Amino acid sequence: MNKNNYCVIMAGGIGSRFWPFSRTSCPKQFLDILGTGHTLLQQTFDRFNKIIPVENILIVTNKIYLDLVREQIPSIPVKNILLEPYRRNTAPCIAYANAKILALNANANIVVAPSDHLIIKEEEFLGIVEHGLEFVSKEDALLTLGITPSRPETGYGYIQIQNDKEFEKKHKGISKVKTFTEKPDSEMAKVFLESGDFFWNSGIFFWSLKSIDHAFNENLPEINSLFKEGANFFNTNEEENFIENIYPRCKSISIDYGIMEKASNVYILCSDFGWSDLGTWGSMFENSLKDKAANHIKGENVFLYDTNNCVISATNNKCVVVQGLTDYIVVNSDDVLLICKMKDEQLIKQFVNDIKLKLGDNYV
Amino acid sequence: MNKNNYCVIMAGGIGSRFWPFSRTSCPKQFLDILGTGHTLLQQTFDRFNKIIPVENILIVTNKIYLDLVREQIPSIPVKNILLEPYRRNTAPCIAYANAKILALNANANIVVAPSDHLIIKEEEFLGIVEHGLEFVSKEDALLTLGITPSRPETGYGYIQIQNDKEFEKKHKGISKVKTFTEKPDSEMAKVFLESGDFFWNSGIFFWSLKSIDHAFNENLPEINSLFKEGANFFNTNEEENFIENIYPRCKSISIDYGIMEKASNVYILCSDFGWSDLGTWGSMFENSLKDKAANHIKGENVFLYDTNNCVISATNNKCVVVQGLTDYIVVNSDDVLLICKMKDEQLIKQFVNDIKLKLGDNYV
Repeated sequence: MNKNNYCVIMAGGIGSRFWPFSRTSCPKQFLDILGTGHTLLQQTFDRFNKIIPVENILIVTNKIYLDLVREQIPSIPVKNILLEPYRRNTAPCIAYANAKILALNANANIVVAPSDHLIIKEEEFLGIVEHGLEFVSKEDALLTLGITPSRPETGYGYIQIQNDKEFEKKHKGISKVKTFTEKPDSEMAKVFLESGDFFWNSGIFFWSLKSIDHAFNENLPEINSLFKEGANFFNTNEEENFIENIYPRCKSISIDYGIMEKASNVYILCSDFGWSDLGTWGSMFENSLKDKAANHIKGENVFLYDTNNCVISATNNKCVVVQGLTDYIVVNSDDVLLICKMKDEQLIKQFVNDIKLKLGDNYV
Repeated sequence: MNKNNYCVIMAGGIGSRFWPFSRTSCPKQFLDILGTGHTLLQQTFDRFNKIIPVENILIVTNKIYLDLVREQIPSIPVKNILLEPYRRNTAPCIAYANAKILALNANANIVVAPSDHLIIKEEEFLGIVEHGLEFVSKEDALLTLGITPSRPETGYGYIQIQNDKEFEKKHKGISKVKTFTEKPDSEMAKVFLESGDFFWNSGIFFWSLKSIDHAFNENLPEINSLFKEGANFFNTNEEENFIENIYPRCKSISIDYGIMEKASNVYILCSDFGWSDLGTWGSMFENSLKDKAANHIKGENVFLYDTNNCVISATNNKCVVVQGLTDYIVVNSDDVLLICKMKDEQLIKQFVNDIKLKLGDNYV
């Protein structure tokens, strides 16, 4: 394994779209969403650990999740768990990881990945990661991982490539990025799909430490300088205190918006390794085992009658009888019951807000 | 209060149509179905106790419910709680009560009533009960209470009267019965409603002990003679043992089928005092308070969106979110979740059977 290769796993999200399965106290990445016996974080860690040594894997999360991370990834050194005191989106999270790695290895090449995505073809994925890390070790490039779209999905952002077959062939699937797009409407998504120049934005990135540091200095200098102030504190006892002090002063901004959409040296490695961001019940449903009536069932004592295309999730101690439902999500956790049309699942965020307003943090 | 007046409350049902609210371990009559602060049994007892002394009120129930009855009706003497070791439908239950009363008062007049019905106009009802008891104290009559139908209900049996205005006027609403009918189909129910000669069978009966004893001897002599064998045991320590021995030999038959449909001296007192047998979720729904969207809601933490005409029942510790449902029953008890179309609630018996087959008695 290349000792200059590092992996940063971002695990600080609260996954409110997956409520009530995902809770503020235990978000999606810490759950075994698909019933595989491993949480999404564990799957992500194990995957990267096949090609990157554990001492080079960093997990950035909110400080309230320290115990969850230690429990689920006992092999990782505690100093490799980066604790954010506040949620500030992805740019500060990455700047923190950069500063931490800089104190150890200025020649690092880094892959940054969310902790809560599904990847089905693991070997193919790891080959791509190695290709990406090699590319950024040689080029001053910010490389993002694009997924060949299989359907006109409106739930993802798309990235348009500069169509240059020769460049792409030379660099094995890597293209220069032309534009980042917002989530399209259904018509536009169809156009994107047909054009062949648009790829799903996976939120997985590659860069050398030098390149991303340069990009921060160019595009988000105020964030980078905050972290640079404490260069001597990283990997010491003073790190926590320092981070606690600067995070309130950090603006909340995504790496996509803050850097990728602005920098000129942005590339995309396009591939298809069976990816889903599992961002919604619908995407979980698509990637899960189903019964003959196309229901995804979790729970040992579930009785379904005249029920189709539903997600039914219950604790094993609950006896659940559902009759006459089609295209619904039914989730019964210990203290919450959610029944919601699959097509209206974007309302779940609103439900969670309403509950917070009326009942506080008890159920969210 | 007339010391010859007795009341027999039948409280041995298991209420499986109301599952999972009603459970074998605590059926409907022991529940506060409508959220009034009193269980149906308590309401029934309190109602009759206004005109019948407590020592003349008998509650017949299954022996597994003794503790529930004592807890809910602490004022009733334990000897007035008649415990059936097996379920044998209403005829043996009434024969048992007759034998018990015979040992105390051969001149008794008895009203027999289910424990789990709703009666809204209580004062009117009590006036009718007194009228019924008076009638049977003078006439050798088996009198049943008929309800003026308000809709072409297919869930009730109907009783046709012998249309004799003069007799009816003389006896203030009492007619001779022409026929008992099964539950009609929807077309037939409309014909019944329009004819004016058909009344809902409430399952509430009046008779003198002499008349019902005679009717048993005529129509169900084998049941009556079983109980007569132990005439000396009633109201003694040997009663329980005696009942335990004869019940297995008792056939299971309803008083309607075994006696009322066969005897020649059957009368009906027709009235309308806001009655429902609360036999189904639908009938409970009709008799309950509803929100603006016509939902009946039980539970403190229920959030509804785009949801209409539903029964939503949850424990207070559960946060329930329902979106996009119309005409459904959603019941969340501690260990069961039921979601079922209101119009298909007759399937609940099937659900309960399926669960029994697969999971035993745990959830039923």
